[in-house]
Amino acid sequence: MTLLQPHHDGSDLYVSTQAPALGDTVQVRVRVPQHYGPLTAVRTRSNPDHEPAWSEATLVSSADGWDWWQADIVVENPRHGYRFLFIHTNGAVETLNQSGLHTGETLDAEDFAFVASTPPPAWLSESVMYQIFPDRFARSALADERPTPEWAIPAEWDTPVDPVIPGRSQQFYGGDLDGIIEHLDHLQDLGVTLLYLTPVFPAASNHRYDASSFMTVDPLLGGDEAYKRLIDAVHARGMRIIGDLTSNHSGDRHEWFRAAYGNPAAPESAFYYFTNADNTEYVSWLGSLTLPKFNWASQELRQRFIEGEDSVVAHWLKQPFGIDGWRVDVANMTGRYRDIDLNAEVRETLLRTVLATNPDAILLGESTNDATSDLQGDAWHGAMTYPSFTRPVWGWLSDPQGTPYLTYDGEEVTEPWFFTQPIGGIPRYTARDVAAAMTRFTAGIPWRVRLGNMLPLDTHDTARFETNAAAGTMPVAVGLSLTLPGVPVVFAGDEYALTGADGESSRTPIPWGTEGDPVVAERISLYRELIALRRGHAALQTGGMRFVHVDDEALVFVRESAEETVLVVASRGDLSVELDDVQLPGASHAEALYGDALLATADDGSVLIEAEGPAFAMWQLPGVRIS
Amino acid sequence: MTLLQPHHDGSDLYVSTQAPALGDTVQVRVRVPQHYGPLTAVRTRSNPDHEPAWSEATLVSSADGWDWWQADIVVENPRHGYRFLFIHTNGAVETLNQSGLHTGETLDAEDFAFVASTPPPAWLSESVMYQIFPDRFARSALADERPTPEWAIPAEWDTPVDPVIPGRSQQFYGGDLDGIIEHLDHLQDLGVTLLYLTPVFPAASNHRYDASSFMTVDPLLGGDEAYKRLIDAVHARGMRIIGDLTSNHSGDRHEWFRAAYGNPAAPESAFYYFTNADNTEYVSWLGSLTLPKFNWASQELRQRFIEGEDSVVAHWLKQPFGIDGWRVDVANMTGRYRDIDLNAEVRETLLRTVLATNPDAILLGESTNDATSDLQGDAWHGAMTYPSFTRPVWGWLSDPQGTPYLTYDGEEVTEPWFFTQPIGGIPRYTARDVAAAMTRFTAGIPWRVRLGNMLPLDTHDTARFETNAAAGTMPVAVGLSLTLPGVPVVFAGDEYALTGADGESSRTPIPWGTEGDPVVAERISLYRELIALRRGHAALQTGGMRFVHVDDEALVFVRESAEETVLVVASRGDLSVELDDVQLPGASHAEALYGDALLATADDGSVLIEAEGPAFAMWQLPGVRIS
Repeated sequence: MTLLQPHHDGSDLYVSTQAPALGDTVQVRVRVPQHYGPLTAVRTRSNPDHEPAWSEATLVSSADGWDWWQADIVVENPRHGYRFLFIHTNGAVETLNQSGLHTGETLDAEDFAFVASTPPPAWLSESVMYQIFPDRFARSALADERPTPEWAIPAEWDTPVDPVIPGRSQQFYGGDLDGIIEHLDHLQDLGVTLLYLTPVFPAASNHRYDASSFMTVDPLLGGDEAYKRLIDAVHARGMRIIGDLTSNHSGDRHEWFRAAYGNPAAPESAFYYFTNADNTEYVSWLGSLTLPKFNWASQELRQRFIEGEDSVVAHWLKQPFGIDGWRVDVANMTGRYRDIDLNAEVRETLLRTVLATNPDAILLGESTNDATSDLQGDAWHGAMTYPSFTRPVWGWLSDPQGTPYLTYDGEEVTEPWFFTQPIGGIPRYTARDVAAAMTRFTAGIPWRVRLGNMLPLDTHDTARFETNAAAGTMPVAVGLSLTLPGVPVVFAGDEYALTGADGESSRTPIPWGTEGDPVVAERISLYRELIALRRGHAALQTGGMRFVHVDDEALVFVRESAEETVLVVASRGDLSVELDDVQLPGASHAEALYGDALLATADDGSVLIEAEGPAFAMWQLPGVRIS
Repeated sequence: MTLLQPHHDGSDLYVSTQAPALGDTVQVRVRVPQHYGPLTAVRTRSNPDHEPAWSEATLVSSADGWDWWQADIVVENPRHGYRFLFIHTNGAVETLNQSGLHTGETLDAEDFAFVASTPPPAWLSESVMYQIFPDRFARSALADERPTPEWAIPAEWDTPVDPVIPGRSQQFYGGDLDGIIEHLDHLQDLGVTLLYLTPVFPAASNHRYDASSFMTVDPLLGGDEAYKRLIDAVHARGMRIIGDLTSNHSGDRHEWFRAAYGNPAAPESAFYYFTNADNTEYVSWLGSLTLPKFNWASQELRQRFIEGEDSVVAHWLKQPFGIDGWRVDVANMTGRYRDIDLNAEVRETLLRTVLATNPDAILLGESTNDATSDLQGDAWHGAMTYPSFTRPVWGWLSDPQGTPYLTYDGEEVTEPWFFTQPIGGIPRYTARDVAAAMTRFTAGIPWRVRLGNMLPLDTHDTARFETNAAAGTMPVAVGLSLTLPGVPVVFAGDEYALTGADGESSRTPIPWGTEGDPVVAERISLYRELIALRRGHAALQTGGMRFVHVDDEALVFVRESAEETVLVVASRGDLSVELDDVQLPGASHAEALYGDALLATADDGSVLIEAEGPAFAMWQLPGVRIS
């Protein structure tokens, strides 16, 4: 599979700005291997107002076996798509877009794309995120003084997680916000820079996605005061923290829902989809009556919740709290119901409020399947999404046997959990399949938004990756999450080598004090080292992404900038591959950054990479020379 | 390239209704070759409100080497996407969607899709469309009595078309509506059933896309009275007729624009995008000042033009006129300008008005490039679009030398015209490329909408296909336009074997009286015969579409229903292909419908098809047996 072909992505090597305004002229560059062609012309094709427009590229320089062509593009729409066309002297025409190089015409949806709106804060790409499920992270001494709520089934910290109802949502470990404060040293040592806490609002479950209010922090977590303490402590360490908001639904104990339930005259009646005359039947999230779905046609709901400085959204971004942004739960379903689709209005309103309250804050949307349609740059800075990274990597690096799990009613499922997809367990992908899936599910997303997409191996909603990981593949999986374009995510406890066979069992309390265990020590060290490399190499944060070799066993790619190139090898099996020197200019100056693998250059410049699988390795090479 | 694989499309063989309502349960069926598998399960995956939902298929019957699996799907959104998953006993998982069979997850955009709204009238799929450019079709004696307008450069009927300004838009042949009436015999003999006339409103050009009013028919064409006569005459013959509306712009002589120009206080001032204080500068179509662009934020514009029973749109659908629908010009750009996108509002309003005025009328939008985003079933019944049929067929069946043409300022371009794309002439596609392009540009469009898409070989905006057609390929090209899913289109004069090297030169007056010319006689006969087959075989109108063989030289496919199968062979080169009998059940009962090609079945049931290229051939086979 030759990957020595024309290349462009949205990174700084290829575009003159990441933040064009409408009407701006942007310079775009495409690099073309000198053996490709000969060419009579290189052109760009945009589609302003859905009508094609073209511009001419000129050959501006050559270096290291690549020709660099440059063209001007005037940015005319908020999402301004473009592609490159290569006109060969023999009459052949090829088109380069985000899904690759094609004969024939290509889809508008797969164009490269500028986004002409306020860019996300630069710190988003520099972040390494750490996800905390507050009930399970750490319990401070203060928790002992709090009464157990009526809904809760108390559990000792070392009690196994119970995935069966009623324990499933009611088993209560009593982790709290001061518990997090007490372990910030650990997080800082690990190197993570951005904490994402699942909901902290009062609720009637351990997961707190069934909020009873959005205007106060659960007293069981320490209340508003503890939240302030945590936020300040996080900020004092130069770290950031974001909250979790359920824009799709509230809990059935929510003050708004209680006001509206059985009371059609209440102003809050319009906040939900009541389906009978006396407001006792209503639409809920996937039929769960504890989670009544919001009706975003209500302007009053928008005012209270998401719009303007007095809204819930603004309240927590403002002082005295000052969180650094929001992750929005079930963003994909928000505002969507039958023939109603208010999703774009809601997400755009959310962004307006975020920007007006704190322009340095971020807004991420949960969209766990194909997120393309909602990720065009109009609102979400990125998505918590699984098909472009998480699931392909599972399919490639898991043991197909997998681990059985229990359903909510205690039935054993022998097929391993795979994102609740009824497909007979974890699918078996090759590395080639992984590259294809990454391409397929990012081809429709502008580069700038792709950089904001989360790269979790697992989350509070999934089994732990480690549970089914094939022998020796953890460094490969963790390594990919820290080197691909997007925001790396560590789900609290992954660094303790925790397992969990489904989305419930993975919510394991952190086994503080086990850091001396050799497996834990090795895993913490793995994360520390790879996180440090991620943070230490800007090319891994915002550099271009170019595959140099893909086969059934291995992914070999570079993250590139003018300053440096980071070469990444991720292999499940043994690897021995010889690459043209044009693929890897400067390979003779490669400096190993990580892993046990051989990189050697021959006299003719060709590059040999060898490794015993599973292997994850990184080298630093010189930055990309344009001339 | 084995195409013996699971198959589904939106046709009656595979879905229990073409017109589901929200909340309806639809039965979907997928056919699976018995050699495929073994399977542990077949499931459907929908995505209601953007969240996955699954249903289980059961094996309901087997026939002719195929297993038929059936599942229920509840239609929950206006466009309700779904796909099929095949779980193999060996753990492999494959997904079938509109782009084919895939390993790994697939894009929501490529799902099969139901459309839960009023379906288009059934007659749309039964139609064979004939496009008329009124100035060039036929001139009645009445035209001689009309004075030549001041803008016009009169031309005799046999004067060559002048593609250079000022003749380009001002050369005036004086074709009129009574001229069309006089030639309805020809059209009825040809077999076409639906006339599409480019604009008939008064204007200052031969193409009339620069309307000066939408409320009257150009007196040069015979005025409202002639239009009524034409419509009545067309209807009296059981044919239909649609108009052409410019929703993107008017002419700069339009009464609305004249009222607004230089007069910011005029109510019509809000109808356009004036860019200076005294309303003398404005946004126009691709910078052409004669075509000022509409600003659809104006409610008053909507009322006058497209919304409700007093609107322009309704006026011509109502009696005493009663046209049968609209083709909407530049539908792709309508309502789109920089960060404004009112396109969906405009198209949905158009449909509401059409349905309220005449529920038996159609609404087609011009979208000459990738039309996917606008063709999700919310408004357009289909599109006038080129990348899914027209351009791929050109790329396959044209002579790469091609014919030079003149630009508007008289400069000769030696590269043949190719839809104004600066790619060095006509690209060279294989039949494989054609199949890939058809798939790529229809995979995102619900089947029901795909059936409404126009299938022109050329139009008033393009060179004539025949101009550059490779020797002997006309029957192949015309045959494809009449056998693929969509609405066949004949551009007036194609049946006279007219040529024209660009979109101007193709607007040739019809050479009435040349029917005795052998080339013309043969071409008319080709159209007559193929149109009759299209109209005589319902499977060609609404039957499923399944490729059975594709290689570089040939496309072999079937259009299928329970009543009949029509096998179509389109080949540029010589063809000799052997097919498994499972591909073509009932081939031993094949009856030739068209063309010189051999179809033979062997004792083992395998099917041999042989032809000398270029070849176009059709056979009728028995309908598809489900059990």
